[in-house]
Amino acid sequence: MQEEKVFKDPVHKYIYVQDRTIWDLINTQEFQRLRRIRQLGTSYLTFHGAEHSRFSHSLGVYEVTRKIISQFERNQYEDWPQEERLLCLCAALLHDLGHGPFSHSIEKAFRTHHEDWTCRIVLGDTEVNRVLRRVSDDFPQQVAGVICKTYHKPIVVGLVSSQLDADRMDYLLRDAYFTGVNYGTFDLERILRVIRPYKGRIVVKESGMHAVEDYLMSRYQMYWQVYFHPVTRSAEIVLSKIFERAKELYEEGYRYQFMPNPLQALFENRMTVENYLLLDEALMQTVLAFWSGEADPVLADLCSRFLHRRLLKFMVLEPYEPQMLHRTVELMERAGIDPAYYLEIDFPSDLAYDVYRPGESDEKLPILLVDAGDQLTEISHKSDIVRSISNLQLGKHHLYYPDEWIGKLGLSGEAELRSIIAG
Amino acid sequence: MQEEKVFKDPVHKYIYVQDRTIWDLINTQEFQRLRRIRQLGTSYLTFHGAEHSRFSHSLGVYEVTRKIISQFERNQYEDWPQEERLLCLCAALLHDLGHGPFSHSIEKAFRTHHEDWTCRIVLGDTEVNRVLRRVSDDFPQQVAGVICKTYHKPIVVGLVSSQLDADRMDYLLRDAYFTGVNYGTFDLERILRVIRPYKGRIVVKESGMHAVEDYLMSRYQMYWQVYFHPVTRSAEIVLSKIFERAKELYEEGYRYQFMPNPLQALFENRMTVENYLLLDEALMQTVLAFWSGEADPVLADLCSRFLHRRLLKFMVLEPYEPQMLHRTVELMERAGIDPAYYLEIDFPSDLAYDVYRPGESDEKLPILLVDAGDQLTEISHKSDIVRSISNLQLGKHHLYYPDEWIGKLGLSGEAELRSIIAG
Amino acid sequence: MQEEKVFKDPVHKYIYVQDRTIWDLINTQEFQRLRRIRQLGTSYLTFHGAEHSRFSHSLGVYEVTRKIISQFERNQYEDWPQEERLLCLCAALLHDLGHGPFSHSIEKAFRTHHEDWTCRIVLGDTEVNRVLRRVSDDFPQQVAGVICKTYHKPIVVGLVSSQLDADRMDYLLRDAYFTGVNYGTFDLERILRVIRPYKGRIVVKESGMHAVEDYLMSRYQMYWQVYFHPVTRSAEIVLSKIFERAKELYEEGYRYQFMPNPLQALFENRMTVENYLLLDEALMQTVLAFWSGEADPVLADLCSRFLHRRLLKFMVLEPYEPQMLHRTVELMERAGIDPAYYLEIDFPSDLAYDVYRPGESDEKLPILLVDAGDQLTEISHKSDIVRSISNLQLGKHHLYYPDEWIGKLGLSGEAELRSIIAG
Amino acid sequence: MQEEKVFKDPVHKYIYVQDRTIWDLINTQEFQRLRRIRQLGTSYLTFHGAEHSRFSHSLGVYEVTRKIISQFERNQYEDWPQEERLLCLCAALLHDLGHGPFSHSIEKAFRTHHEDWTCRIVLGDTEVNRVLRRVSDDFPQQVAGVICKTYHKPIVVGLVSSQLDADRMDYLLRDAYFTGVNYGTFDLERILRVIRPYKGRIVVKESGMHAVEDYLMSRYQMYWQVYFHPVTRSAEIVLSKIFERAKELYEEGYRYQFMPNPLQALFENRMTVENYLLLDEALMQTVLAFWSGEADPVLADLCSRFLHRRLLKFMVLEPYEPQMLHRTVELMERAGIDPAYYLEIDFPSDLAYDVYRPGESDEKLPILLVDAGDQLTEISHKSDIVRSISNLQLGKHHLYYPDEWIGKLGLSGEAELRSIIAG
Repeated sequence: MQEEKVFKDPVHKYIYVQDRTIWDLINTQEFQRLRRIRQLGTSYLTFHGAEHSRFSHSLGVYEVTRKIISQFERNQYEDWPQEERLLCLCAALLHDLGHGPFSHSIEKAFRTHHEDWTCRIVLGDTEVNRVLRRVSDDFPQQVAGVICKTYHKPIVVGLVSSQLDADRMDYLLRDAYFTGVNYGTFDLERILRVIRPYKGRIVVKESGMHAVEDYLMSRYQMYWQVYFHPVTRSAEIVLSKIFERAKELYEEGYRYQFMPNPLQALFENRMTVENYLLLDEALMQTVLAFWSGEADPVLADLCSRFLHRRLLKFMVLEPYEPQMLHRTVELMERAGIDPAYYLEIDFPSDLAYDVYRPGESDEKLPILLVDAGDQLTEISHKSDIVRSISNLQLGKHHLYYPDEWIGKLGLSGEAELRSIIAG
Repeated sequence: MQEEKVFKDPVHKYIYVQDRTIWDLINTQEFQRLRRIRQLGTSYLTFHGAEHSRFSHSLGVYEVTRKIISQFERNQYEDWPQEERLLCLCAALLHDLGHGPFSHSIEKAFRTHHEDWTCRIVLGDTEVNRVLRRVSDDFPQQVAGVICKTYHKPIVVGLVSSQLDADRMDYLLRDAYFTGVNYGTFDLERILRVIRPYKGRIVVKESGMHAVEDYLMSRYQMYWQVYFHPVTRSAEIVLSKIFERAKELYEEGYRYQFMPNPLQALFENRMTVENYLLLDEALMQTVLAFWSGEADPVLADLCSRFLHRRLLKFMVLEPYEPQMLHRTVELMERAGIDPAYYLEIDFPSDLAYDVYRPGESDEKLPILLVDAGDQLTEISHKSDIVRSISNLQLGKHHLYYPDEWIGKLGLSGEAELRSIIAG
Repeated sequence: MQEEKVFKDPVHKYIYVQDRTIWDLINTQEFQRLRRIRQLGTSYLTFHGAEHSRFSHSLGVYEVTRKIISQFERNQYEDWPQEERLLCLCAALLHDLGHGPFSHSIEKAFRTHHEDWTCRIVLGDTEVNRVLRRVSDDFPQQVAGVICKTYHKPIVVGLVSSQLDADRMDYLLRDAYFTGVNYGTFDLERILRVIRPYKGRIVVKESGMHAVEDYLMSRYQMYWQVYFHPVTRSAEIVLSKIFERAKELYEEGYRYQFMPNPLQALFENRMTVENYLLLDEALMQTVLAFWSGEADPVLADLCSRFLHRRLLKFMVLEPYEPQMLHRTVELMERAGIDPAYYLEIDFPSDLAYDVYRPGESDEKLPILLVDAGDQLTEISHKSDIVRSISNLQLGKHHLYYPDEWIGKLGLSGEAELRSIIAG
Repeated sequence: MQEEKVFKDPVHKYIYVQDRTIWDLINTQEFQRLRRIRQLGTSYLTFHGAEHSRFSHSLGVYEVTRKIISQFERNQYEDWPQEERLLCLCAALLHDLGHGPFSHSIEKAFRTHHEDWTCRIVLGDTEVNRVLRRVSDDFPQQVAGVICKTYHKPIVVGLVSSQLDADRMDYLLRDAYFTGVNYGTFDLERILRVIRPYKGRIVVKESGMHAVEDYLMSRYQMYWQVYFHPVTRSAEIVLSKIFERAKELYEEGYRYQFMPNPLQALFENRMTVENYLLLDEALMQTVLAFWSGEADPVLADLCSRFLHRRLLKFMVLEPYEPQMLHRTVELMERAGIDPAYYLEIDFPSDLAYDVYRPGESDEKLPILLVDAGDQLTEISHKSDIVRSISNLQLGKHHLYYPDEWIGKLGLSGEAELRSIIAG
């Protein structure tokens, strides 16, 4: 490009675009669509600042990747495959391209996977594909390979997705910024300085161990205080119930006042790329608004709950015993409320850092420290704090239910409920 | 309320709710609707962080007002009418309730005013109205009076809208935060400390003059660098043209694939409160998505431009002479493009601070300094910097046009255009 | 006071003074002296921003205490003894009054304790004492009691010093701000909101557990990355060696060119309050500058090292075996360098959070959570993260030595050293 | 250097050292001495956070210069003389090397100039000189030339000192950070992006005009709210009076208890580089502490005022008439206080931006905008806001006097004083 272009960004101050391909990708309609999909799904109902889009996050992941590579180049690290620069940048920019509206709930209800859709969009008849093909015929394939983790150079894959990748570095900072919590604020500039390529992987200089500890702690806190916030989960549960109910009705032959094509395709499991790209959160919210006037009382009620933020309440069951669920189901049925749509047990769970267990399924590559003598050590062997938080199995069972249920229980019902919760 | 409630807010850290009425207002569906209307309309197409909603701004204005009043109470200022506390808080919270989607463009195209709608919602058959009536029968009327500036105590009106009001204090800080520019960052805490009620008005202690200067400079910079950004204006122009064209077609009897009731009501100038509340940006973006597939080529093209951010380009005409427009119109017509939908001259203009000119129409109350001897002086008499920037008549004429036009002009056409622009 | 006074503070934005007594205390010469004593001793030689004084920290501790109390008053907690407000504020403000220059090194070399000196100043013939006596005759005694933890109400003592006190809350934020690291940035406003008085203690509402976790993690990171930074320790070691050597020389009858009275008094162990107050870092640095020209080569060399920041180098001994020290001492002696002044083994150690062990010496009061049913639980029983980091015994042995030593060792000496370090 | 070194810096996050020469310069004793000289002289008595040193500012100016040059190199601007990189960096780092303690007051009292001393240190028998000579024999001369503005390439001089230079960019941000005011926070990253070398000068791309406006406004606000704060001026006045009195006494043959060599040399106007380097703020504060016990009551009183922050009070004379001074002098003499040491009229004054007036003495080079057609325009021709604030002649006369004076005036004296002030 003749001249560097910039985007003003609240997290990285500026995002610098230096390649024509990147510029053109940003201007495709598929990438612009990400403006209509929120980064944090339903979190804006808990943290009103969290209204930022996947568009802004995608630019951020690109920028972090650009900074990492530029550091590698400045230091002239031999282990860095320079020819992979543009591939990394494109994969970083596009890695979330296939996200749909309210991904968590929709993916759960319809068993779709955003990564698959990303690859379908990259490889399909799209503007993105045409821009990528200008680089070379197999470039779209390579980009898809990096995103789906099948590309043959793990260092390229690891930059975009691993336990210390550009994706996480951006989203922790960005989600902290927009929600306004200050847990996510680790020292990005320092992390960028202490990572380096080494024998086909990204490793961390031992002197940077504390910076990584801080990053892992940020991640831990963001999960428990933001991503797993029970109000957000409640909104996701309501959404999932809406989709379940709507699909059921559709399959029963119910006639909707408003049923746009892309949604119909979703219901009929015959989704095309073209239709998928029409799915965005504006459309979904409009659908919910229409459906809040539908004849089916369950669907109408759930939609109106979501729209007006009258979500399900929750209580913590701790310790949790499976029979608790059965007994509350009975209680709810007795009060005349259908537990299939109004009751849910949720157990959020995540590992702050996954120690490597070779051979296990879904093994995650560990974070490695490299010392002055080029020795590699898995971080939890050197860091007491990482060892302490690794594999912490956290989380409590939450029972979600509608507010008015308690009122309908009657005194004896309430007493029974209380005894169930007490365990 | 039994216990103070808080909202996490990135700008004010926390927003404190201490009154049941405020809590209930926030939970009405009319107030929750503000989540679906962006604070800065089309600015997110220029500053991708600017995706924050009027919901978050409204909470912010409430919080600033709460802080001001709490300072007044702590200092036990006699000139503060304590009984007006709840009225001020409600008016602050609700002052933007009537904003529709992409207000600037819609208000321009359909000659509606969001303040009128705010009052209609406050006074109509709405949840907000019912919550307010619980305070007293004429409370909705009072709240509407403050918002429409007819309430009999100017100090109450001035808190919510004046040249130094809670509205501006929040939006400058908030818009700066979300866009990521750092012009808007004046010292709110200091301003809160130096204002006080005095003889039925809010005045500024003379020692706080520099803080007000800084606030006015912030405002000046935000206008010129954010609010009047030509890319944002371009998006607004495209939107206005869409509405003009759509209305025209509607009146000509054109049959739309997708024409939801609220929009129809808008076109037919028979809007009700109920329909108005269904208008939000999710609906509007869905409408634009549908219309980008309409048969009318102008409407389809404009909608697709907006959706995929292929806006109109601009050039600066300086100095501007009215005949420039006529000549460019001719040139565009010669290239086969309809200037009615593809050409616009825009002249953004604003005053950083309006010196009071008694008797003039739309007179704005000036900012007054009060000195140790209780003497009042209009700020521009004491501040060199305010005097310098007052009444600065700024702005340049921008000509907006579609990219491909230049290509269609041919060599002689381009030369002609260049001579027009050169003036 | 007629009108609230404010100090501009980078950490808390403003510090509000509302009591004449506080204002007068700040203006005493004993309190002003804290401007000449750095908050972080020798840390400015590692983090050049860390040039802030104990004056600014003391104002900060006062302000945090003021905010806590004002929250207690606003919530009208019955368990808060309102009559103790001024006592708490004074103790918070004055708690570091007895700090001398480079406290760590001087206290170590001369076995003084800054808390004792604080009490001697508060109780002695000083301006501070006179201001306090204006409140009541035994007020100085009460203030000293709170600072020395003998005051009969633990809630008052705990506010100023405990594992979650105003002192720590200010210094973590302040030291992070001035060094520029971002580990110390926990959410003060939230912590202020979740603590409350309960049966004579400060406790934390269970909903605030994560905020406390974050604060403890901040503390942990600040210790390991700032307070125990090996370069800072090196400077402290050099200072300690200077004082040891100087005292030794003094006792041997060495005549100094420059030996101001307060220092002489320190050497002769006959320090008075009056002399102590003359000890500040300006004086100590002037002394070091003069001494860098003294005849004794060890003293002159050490002083010049400190002054020009030519500190001792360090290596990590891990795992550490006591005989390592003996063998390195021999090696240093062979190279003709006196290990008494040029060699040190340092083992920094701290607990991020001390679980309460009743009956143990120096038992620290635990942080207690209070739930909705007013049940108290020690935090590590509820927080996985606190349990994980509690009682982590961290730290490595560092060997400090002068740069030129290695050069003097010769090849075989270096090999020997390397084998020692390898363990 | 084998590996980039970094300093943690609160303003720029990190300061990157990539050249052995820069690293060695930082480690010289002359540069380390800047740690003992505060950046803002007596401002810490007004803004307690302002305890940062010229060491930290000097690193900052170096870093800003490094960033500017690295941008020039990345863009491969032809007009940038690449061979001058190291010279620019050294001059930036060292430009304040000759500052003495409390520069303003000392320079005023003894008619010294810190720039002269910088050059003497750079050219003298110093560690700095030896490091520079390792580059080339005439390198020290070149560095001195840049700092004293005699170097033959104006672009090199302008980088370090002009109306938009690395010095100002760092100090505005740094002083704002440490005082805690938020006026100085312009967008450095944007300014770095919009400046470029052009025909032997640094110019600003027209698109960056608003960023420069913001920078000039920051400068304006910092002058009036921080640098010219009347409490700071009061401290400077007290210091100047101390030096005047001390010199007078010295010349009268007064024997001081404590009169270190460097100060004696200053009094006798026979200062050497070696002695000058021993002058630092630690020494000066120690001197003031000793002198507060001197027999001369004026000297002792003034020193004790400074030490314990019992500064002179002030009142504003506006409009100011010269005879006001004569009449207050009489009044003070009548009260038995010597106006020579206890009265001062101060008129602080500064221009936010100096329009270029060719031919005038001390002409300052203007800030030039360069447009797309490479046309240069002086910024005030294009920016309304710069034109508005240019050449604003601001400031008011302040009368400084000791607190107790008013008490000694008697009723009629006070009345007289009031009539004088009223003008």
